[in-house]
Amino acid sequence: MKLLAFGPHPDDIEFGCAPLLLLEAAAGSDVKMIVLSRGEAGSAGVPEEREQEARRAAALMHAELDFLDFRGDCHLEATPANSIRLAAEIRRNRPDIVLAPHPTPNQHPDHFAAGVMVRDACRLARYAGLADLKTLAPHRIAHLYFYDITQHGQRAPDVVMDISPVAEDWRAVMACHASQVSSKGYIDLQLASARLLGLTIGVEFALGVYVNDPVRVDRLSALSLTARNF
Amino acid sequence: MKLLAFGPHPDDIEFGCAPLLLLEAAAGSDVKMIVLSRGEAGSAGVPEEREQEARRAAALMHAELDFLDFRGDCHLEATPANSIRLAAEIRRNRPDIVLAPHPTPNQHPDHFAAGVMVRDACRLARYAGLADLKTLAPHRIAHLYFYDITQHGQRAPDVVMDISPVAEDWRAVMACHASQVSSKGYIDLQLASARLLGLTIGVEFALGVYVNDPVRVDRLSALSLTARNF
Amino acid sequence: MKLLAFGPHPDDIEFGCAPLLLLEAAAGSDVKMIVLSRGEAGSAGVPEEREQEARRAAALMHAELDFLDFRGDCHLEATPANSIRLAAEIRRNRPDIVLAPHPTPNQHPDHFAAGVMVRDACRLARYAGLADLKTLAPHRIAHLYFYDITQHGQRAPDVVMDISPVAEDWRAVMACHASQVSSKGYIDLQLASARLLGLTIGVEFALGVYVNDPVRVDRLSALSLTARNF
Amino acid sequence: MKLLAFGPHPDDIEFGCAPLLLLEAAAGSDVKMIVLSRGEAGSAGVPEEREQEARRAAALMHAELDFLDFRGDCHLEATPANSIRLAAEIRRNRPDIVLAPHPTPNQHPDHFAAGVMVRDACRLARYAGLADLKTLAPHRIAHLYFYDITQHGQRAPDVVMDISPVAEDWRAVMACHASQVSSKGYIDLQLASARLLGLTIGVEFALGVYVNDPVRVDRLSALSLTARNF
Amino acid sequence: MKLLAFGPHPDDIEFGCAPLLLLEAAAGSDVKMIVLSRGEAGSAGVPEEREQEARRAAALMHAELDFLDFRGDCHLEATPANSIRLAAEIRRNRPDIVLAPHPTPNQHPDHFAAGVMVRDACRLARYAGLADLKTLAPHRIAHLYFYDITQHGQRAPDVVMDISPVAEDWRAVMACHASQVSSKGYIDLQLASARLLGLTIGVEFALGVYVNDPVRVDRLSALSLTARNF
Amino acid sequence: MKLLAFGPHPDDIEFGCAPLLLLEAAAGSDVKMIVLSRGEAGSAGVPEEREQEARRAAALMHAELDFLDFRGDCHLEATPANSIRLAAEIRRNRPDIVLAPHPTPNQHPDHFAAGVMVRDACRLARYAGLADLKTLAPHRIAHLYFYDITQHGQRAPDVVMDISPVAEDWRAVMACHASQVSSKGYIDLQLASARLLGLTIGVEFALGVYVNDPVRVDRLSALSLTARNF
Repeated sequence: MKLLAFGPHPDDIEFGCAPLLLLEAAAGSDVKMIVLSRGEAGSAGVPEEREQEARRAAALMHAELDFLDFRGDCHLEATPANSIRLAAEIRRNRPDIVLAPHPTPNQHPDHFAAGVMVRDACRLARYAGLADLKTLAPHRIAHLYFYDITQHGQRAPDVVMDISPVAEDWRAVMACHASQVSSKGYIDLQLASARLLGLTIGVEFALGVYVNDPVRVDRLSALSLTARNF
Repeated sequence: MKLLAFGPHPDDIEFGCAPLLLLEAAAGSDVKMIVLSRGEAGSAGVPEEREQEARRAAALMHAELDFLDFRGDCHLEATPANSIRLAAEIRRNRPDIVLAPHPTPNQHPDHFAAGVMVRDACRLARYAGLADLKTLAPHRIAHLYFYDITQHGQRAPDVVMDISPVAEDWRAVMACHASQVSSKGYIDLQLASARLLGLTIGVEFALGVYVNDPVRVDRLSALSLTARNF
Repeated sequence: MKLLAFGPHPDDIEFGCAPLLLLEAAAGSDVKMIVLSRGEAGSAGVPEEREQEARRAAALMHAELDFLDFRGDCHLEATPANSIRLAAEIRRNRPDIVLAPHPTPNQHPDHFAAGVMVRDACRLARYAGLADLKTLAPHRIAHLYFYDITQHGQRAPDVVMDISPVAEDWRAVMACHASQVSSKGYIDLQLASARLLGLTIGVEFALGVYVNDPVRVDRLSALSLTARNF
Repeated sequence: MKLLAFGPHPDDIEFGCAPLLLLEAAAGSDVKMIVLSRGEAGSAGVPEEREQEARRAAALMHAELDFLDFRGDCHLEATPANSIRLAAEIRRNRPDIVLAPHPTPNQHPDHFAAGVMVRDACRLARYAGLADLKTLAPHRIAHLYFYDITQHGQRAPDVVMDISPVAEDWRAVMACHASQVSSKGYIDLQLASARLLGLTIGVEFALGVYVNDPVRVDRLSALSLTARNF
Repeated sequence: MKLLAFGPHPDDIEFGCAPLLLLEAAAGSDVKMIVLSRGEAGSAGVPEEREQEARRAAALMHAELDFLDFRGDCHLEATPANSIRLAAEIRRNRPDIVLAPHPTPNQHPDHFAAGVMVRDACRLARYAGLADLKTLAPHRIAHLYFYDITQHGQRAPDVVMDISPVAEDWRAVMACHASQVSSKGYIDLQLASARLLGLTIGVEFALGVYVNDPVRVDRLSALSLTARNF
Repeated sequence: MKLLAFGPHPDDIEFGCAPLLLLEAAAGSDVKMIVLSRGEAGSAGVPEEREQEARRAAALMHAELDFLDFRGDCHLEATPANSIRLAAEIRRNRPDIVLAPHPTPNQHPDHFAAGVMVRDACRLARYAGLADLKTLAPHRIAHLYFYDITQHGQRAPDVVMDISPVAEDWRAVMACHASQVSSKGYIDLQLASARLLGLTIGVEFALGVYVNDPVRVDRLSALSLTARNF
């Protein structure tokens, strides 16, 4: 299995869905992260520093990491041209599973712009005739999931996982982003959210994602774990 | 694995979710069906005939079948007392997976009343102090899924399955309800719906259900099948 | 100001909205709690013990406490007759603000039954001609709010409050329900939820409620506190 | 065409959908109203007076009027037994079009209880085997529409009509309910709502209803009137 | 009556709403189709071939056909400039009824981009002062409807029609797009969907659309056909 | 308190939320309006005339007024660059409260484009590192509210206010836009809507807005006014 996670800024994947990637890497999956800016507009941290923080985090995660430039932080725009650029990345990397921020508005505009671009890119990646991408073989992903970055408590997740085995690793991954975690309780926020979801499903820490398509299984009993604790 | 499917009338389980039960029976799961009336109010078929039809269908499905009486067809009412009666059945049968009609109104009133009763019963089955049920050990189910009966195209399913391997068996199971299928295109309706969903996920026939709780997996790659065909 | 909080079981008000009541009691408001069962069906605790726990919690909260009997835990039913009984309580107590569990299904059936009964009772309390209540003067409440009990992360709250000043008191109030907090992480769950919401609005602990009617103010600047932290 | 409108209290049909019935009566349709209480709980007006008001209104509307007793105002309950009673009325009256209050909660509990009862009754009216109704031939209605009583601005209507030609008649019909219109601005409320909707579709006064089923036409151009004014 | 249907690619109108146009042409309405790309990115078929397929289909439909260029398939973008270009087409063609793909995301990005562009264009077409369009007289359409292309079962349609009389013609129209129908079951998909909806309303094949504005009629009985079959 | 209201065209703020600004100005708040076009595309009125009308209205409102140029009426586009321009205005003006049109589509495309741009601008205004804005100190607003322009009856407002004390002033403010109010009933529309909402909360005229974030108060009793009249 190959996973490809997209994040608008250098720390979004780490805060939003790193535990899922840590679980996959531990299970032998290939994990790659593509970041769409260098966090140039952040109140703290300069781009070089933020790139280095991301590289340290990626090393901890045993994940490959690339940066793309879409005119910088706060300038992500969900245009066909930008979605086609991401579709090219999908064709190059040929993932089974793609992860992107939730495309619902009302947070950092880059967050949902990234979600929309990735969602559309997953479609475009499979149209063989698209001239802009003719040097890359079409690719059909199997799954697109959306993750939350700092939005919590707005909607129930569709798929949940026990991330307790990687909770300490996650904390270390988030802490790599030293420039972002000094003043604000971002790490506390993510752990509080994971603890809350964990309590509702009966584990210490849990993380959820949102599906773009129905979950498909061979038969109902293939879903053997339960999320019914309260 | 043990599955317990509830249906308000003698043919609702067969039309709504029999393919899922056929797949489970073939995989060695225990399957039981509990029907909450004998279809006394139907425009065609008398109760004895309808019970016989259901028994023939259950035999084809290798499923156990029970009938309960809640004052008959068109009289199902989602009261605490009725939910407690169903909770008793859940305690007696101790299923891992429970199936019920979707609890959203606007169809035969018995359909969503059954959905509400079963949903509430799944909760009540696990409260140890409930005096009405003190002779039966509490039981916590793992999964509750809802199925559609004759409502189609109202909402996207959460979990989908390829039912092509059992499509012919399903047709035979539905045909057991001879009193119901003479005048109206019920069998055609279900097959058209399954064919449509099948086309959208890339198989011949598919069936979907709705979750009551998030799907829980160990990690994302545990969901290896894709529903992305269009 | 007088507040009247309804709870289906002896600990629901304490776990769901006690911090709001503690803030009010500290500000000089009158607070009363009416509990609609003695928690007879719980897996732990007997009714006498649970009533005593609730009385200790009420004492800590400087709140009045009454119990009503609606055929016991797991038997709450949102009938007109039951709503009229609650309307009588509203007429007797004449609150400005009423609190009830959220009336959305899919949790303990008593929880949303209580929410529905209270919502309807608030209407019925003001119809002067209702013969069942003719010995009690009609009363029009000013506000109805809904609280969550153990459902978290399903929907965004409408009104949020900083409860940090009473967080320790809340913990003590919840701990009064010793029979309920031994095996399950209920206290942890509520604190994790309050911590998560607190982080999102920039305080240590926060709690939110849901409105039944629009919020009304004299002018926009009357809402001087901000919930925009992330 | 025959229309059958159900209302929970003596003035609800008149305030909620009388203009639609006036238009139909003028066009030669048969119009009947069935009221499910005598408004016994209202703050003003006694049952005898309210029945007389309703009879005067019905006379103005050239509509037949019946009263049914469901234990009185504030006691309407959406049980199978009550829905079956209404199904009997539907079988007796054999309408093409049925009108009922919107079944969404959060208003007078009788209002949505009536909506739910009528919606379910429309289903039950067509099940030939229902023993409770065996002396009455099954009847399949063609259309079920929901109307608002005093809820405004909560949702957009599905079908709108210019009621300007009957606006004065409507005012007179509402004024028949003298006991209800003295203290509160009910007539003003309905006219303000109709004026607002009228302005949005380009007529003086308009009224909207909600559908239970899709609108069906022979072809798109059969819908020749436009609601696009703003 | 004049109908103007917009489609992002050469086969979308034919697959999505051709039956409605066939019914209109048969009834004497003028029908025009405007296609916003030549399907340049499709996995099968080259632009010249696809244009020819569309022209053959238009001939079968007795419909006029135009192509516009918005930088090609996969590049449709809902900008003001593009909406203004479509508004110009609306002013030139002066339709009563406009049809466009549903503007809800999550399918081919061109599909919902086209829906958004057309929806906005219908507004812009009527602002007399818009300098970009000053050589064209403003035009106010009467109706905007949205159609589904390959999304099925996501939401209930607002207006449904019996398309059985033109089902065979529709099949022939779809078959004109030979390059698109060889490998994938597109024709089967549309017919399965139409058969399913047909069964639910009691005809052989049916098609539904979504409204942008409420349906307006003179009076309720003007809607004489029923969609209540199940 | 400082309020900053954004409007796409010269009359939108006046028609949509002027009463709220009038109440604030009367209470001593600073009020500023920024208009994003000069209404160049309107069917009536030329830009110079419309600017003068807006200036007269602003004078009546004791509000400051600025115009920005985003390529003119009908050309507003929610791009990052445009949102950054508005963020610059927010940094320059440093408001506590920001008002913008509701960002939900399906009205004049400029209306929701303006809503989206302002919503995103409120986020961008607080990111210190954003190079485009480095000469302006970051600013964190306290509240973002959305207002309706000519959409009514689509959704219930979150916050309502009695605007009766300024209803006559509002009428005068709207009447300043003489070029817009001659042919269409815009003033009537707004007053009918305000009258309708007023009746539902028990005052003569009321206006509502929509929140972007939860309302935050110190405690529940801080909300002392009630909106429960019907």
